[in-house]
Amino acid sequence: MNPNFDSIGKQFVEQYYLVFDNKDIRGQVAVMYHPTDALLTFEGQQFQGVEAISEKMKTIPIDNMFRQITTIDCQPTVDGGVLVNVIGQLKNNSENDKVLGFSQTFVLKPANNSFFIFHDIFRLVIHNA
Amino acid sequence: MNPNFDSIGKQFVEQYYLVFDNKDIRGQVAVMYHPTDALLTFEGQQFQGVEAISEKMKTIPIDNMFRQITTIDCQPTVDGGVLVNVIGQLKNNSENDKVLGFSQTFVLKPANNSFFIFHDIFRLVIHNA
Repeated sequence: MNPNFDSIGKQFVEQYYLVFDNKDIRGQVAVMYHPTDALLTFEGQQFQGVEAISEKMKTIPIDNMFRQITTIDCQPTVDGGVLVNVIGQLKNNSENDKVLGFSQTFVLKPANNSFFIFHDIFRLVIHNA
Repeated sequence: MNPNFDSIGKQFVEQYYLVFDNKDIRGQVAVMYHPTDALLTFEGQQFQGVEAISEKMKTIPIDNMFRQITTIDCQPTVDGGVLVNVIGQLKNNSENDKVLGFSQTFVLKPANNSFFIFHDIFRLVIHNA
């Protein structure tokens, strides 16, 4: 197990949202996913591999986002990777948009001196929807 | 990858909460965790192995719980396991308790014709707390 799992997970989350939340460079999060094996479940829709994930990212109907992280929990995995669960709040840049809670789970794995996203599950926390 | 990952994950969640939500048998969820390698992060506190997890379960200050599942998202892992993210709501059995959202992430792995929990991250969704 990687003894630095906590700082790796938290640093990753920071970098990921820095890119994702800026509409102009959002597409660049694609390089953080494993080219062929990465799985994304976005609001219940499943995507595999950078190409499909990248296409999905382009269709997300939001501009810049204001994001507030509430908690980041990290655990080390036996293969030297990191399991990360993030809880937070999102607000679009329109003044009238309401604040929505979200939950996002990542599994990162080491490769070529870096880490790739192998699993990503994103859900807005909307009960009784 | 296990082609039945979705039904395995959803069936597991159902069984897990059936036991966990009943105060009289809550301790029995311990057998679902891998004896030595299971990691639990419960509201930010970390526990490893069945013994520590079992001790933690005994201290959870809640009786029977009313739980409503909002979403269950499952992904297959390369080692034949399942990554599961659950979002839902919890209410203690007292009439006056308010409803709280929660997010829980499990990683299940196959062993001896069954599945063990290797990772469990639980958080109540309380922003600005």
